[in-house]
Amino acid sequence: MIQAYAAHTKGGKLEPFAYDPGVLKDEEVEIKVDYCGICHSDLSMLKNDWGNSQYPLVPGHEVVGTVAAVGERVTTVKIGQQVGLGWYSHSCLHCEWCMSGNQNLCQTAEQTIVGRFGGFADKVRAHQEWVIPLPAGLDPAKAGPLFCGGITVFNPIVQFDVKPTDRVGVIGIGGLGHMALKFLQAWGCDVTAFSTNPDKEAEVLELGANHFVNSRDAKALEKVANSFDFILSTVNADLDWGSYINALRPKGRLHFVGVVPNDIKTHAFALIGGQKSLSGSPLGSPVTTAKMLDFAARHGIEPITETFAFSQVNEAIAHLEAGKARYRIVLQH
Amino acid sequence: MIQAYAAHTKGGKLEPFAYDPGVLKDEEVEIKVDYCGICHSDLSMLKNDWGNSQYPLVPGHEVVGTVAAVGERVTTVKIGQQVGLGWYSHSCLHCEWCMSGNQNLCQTAEQTIVGRFGGFADKVRAHQEWVIPLPAGLDPAKAGPLFCGGITVFNPIVQFDVKPTDRVGVIGIGGLGHMALKFLQAWGCDVTAFSTNPDKEAEVLELGANHFVNSRDAKALEKVANSFDFILSTVNADLDWGSYINALRPKGRLHFVGVVPNDIKTHAFALIGGQKSLSGSPLGSPVTTAKMLDFAARHGIEPITETFAFSQVNEAIAHLEAGKARYRIVLQH
Repeated sequence: MIQAYAAHTKGGKLEPFAYDPGVLKDEEVEIKVDYCGICHSDLSMLKNDWGNSQYPLVPGHEVVGTVAAVGERVTTVKIGQQVGLGWYSHSCLHCEWCMSGNQNLCQTAEQTIVGRFGGFADKVRAHQEWVIPLPAGLDPAKAGPLFCGGITVFNPIVQFDVKPTDRVGVIGIGGLGHMALKFLQAWGCDVTAFSTNPDKEAEVLELGANHFVNSRDAKALEKVANSFDFILSTVNADLDWGSYINALRPKGRLHFVGVVPNDIKTHAFALIGGQKSLSGSPLGSPVTTAKMLDFAARHGIEPITETFAFSQVNEAIAHLEAGKARYRIVLQH
Repeated sequence: MIQAYAAHTKGGKLEPFAYDPGVLKDEEVEIKVDYCGICHSDLSMLKNDWGNSQYPLVPGHEVVGTVAAVGERVTTVKIGQQVGLGWYSHSCLHCEWCMSGNQNLCQTAEQTIVGRFGGFADKVRAHQEWVIPLPAGLDPAKAGPLFCGGITVFNPIVQFDVKPTDRVGVIGIGGLGHMALKFLQAWGCDVTAFSTNPDKEAEVLELGANHFVNSRDAKALEKVANSFDFILSTVNADLDWGSYINALRPKGRLHFVGVVPNDIKTHAFALIGGQKSLSGSPLGSPVTTAKMLDFAARHGIEPITETFAFSQVNEAIAHLEAGKARYRIVLQH
């Protein structure tokens, strides 16, 4: 039996929940969970915001742990090895997206907490290809958030070929945004943090931003018109996207990794004049995740975390929901 | 004196209009206009749709002619040479966009019919860098529309690295769209034409499309969900863009070269799930224009045109405005 924490109803409290995972499949890995980050997506799933939640629901998709058992055909990791698991736990491995190294775009990819039980537990299982070894030099107590929040902001830097000479903006300096600042600083970019909270300025500059812009200050946004090669939006709130498109230089891109409630709108002229792009992306592939971990280890990049015991999971979720997390919460056994 | 056709008021008829162009500047070329295409942008400028029209307004930015005179420092073309001129007549040549070969993104680029007199005339002038030699093998009577409509649809193929293995859609099979079909067929792509006019199907397939989809048929659009690497929209009308984003495969791009009246809207999820992009672009650089002309000459690509005498310019404009042009109108002396 696996000892987990599950919500039994939409928005319900998490309670201890034991389930029998059955026989370990040939290519599956069972991870003993040491740490698990809490992500806004866990909240969204608990509340069935996206209409695809099934209860009992065991959240948790920023797992760091040790390999406890491996299926017969597992070759990529060994028992006792330190590993991580993120949003995806399996993909078909046969479609053109899987076969071309874009497993995160597999149309039938299995999501760790959708229709299966996640990492708020003593153990969790996943297909070997999505269980990523943790390189030396990363603190396992802090690495969990890299597996969802981290790869979500790192992947677009790779996919869209952001260059060290680029001027990059990050909108929203929370769980995802603060990791983006650290990655982009190490990448060599000129980095601007956009935040609604002017109190964060000093802290944000310390995190790796070169500049701070109050995202509620329309005049400050006007001042940075025609400035950015790439703007990464990590927020879950509607903003005046026109101002951010205006802040792009020619050939610039406004990229979304945060799901905003209402439609993103733009006039065609705003894109045509300067050959600008809007885009979005989900997570990253296993190879890109491994590259991110190596990059993070080499550059000493780790999320800033607050730690809660698994037994305090409901308090931890309330803390996140209140917007108080600085910057990412990790549960530990 | 240059003998031109000008509108003196917003939406007014074109009338003969003579102006003194002054001394030819050192790097300027004077073109004797042999042919000039009519573009929807000429109509928009005549009606001051974009708020930047100045009267008297001499339209015309799809010029083919012969070099009649050159300024002292002109080295790129010779008197008597056959050349073309499109939407841009000059750019600063010093900014980073000009210096990196993206002269069409120069923020101070001079537009042939904005604040100056265009090609509905016996002569027109432009800076030498924007006067592009016509290669052998192109019919000068038909080449004019390549200099605006043609480069507008050819440039994104180059900019966004459309591949011969790609599945590409073209929305709107008019002046721009029919040239896009021809370019994409020669490029080696699998090409789908989206048109509101089912009567065009046979003709469109002959133009180079492999498939035809009625863009007013919601079910037909659903059938092509997850099909396209690249969709190029050439229309000036609002469509259900969500259906077209849905028709993109992962990593696909919906690209706008037509200015649609209302905002383009998308939910963030629609971009994030499949790493999709929306974008736009204006015209192309002189080098890309020259490449297009060479490509067109090698592949026997030319627009389908209807010819009017310059003296019939008002009839020609009425024909275009009535949506009757098949597919592009060219004025000739």
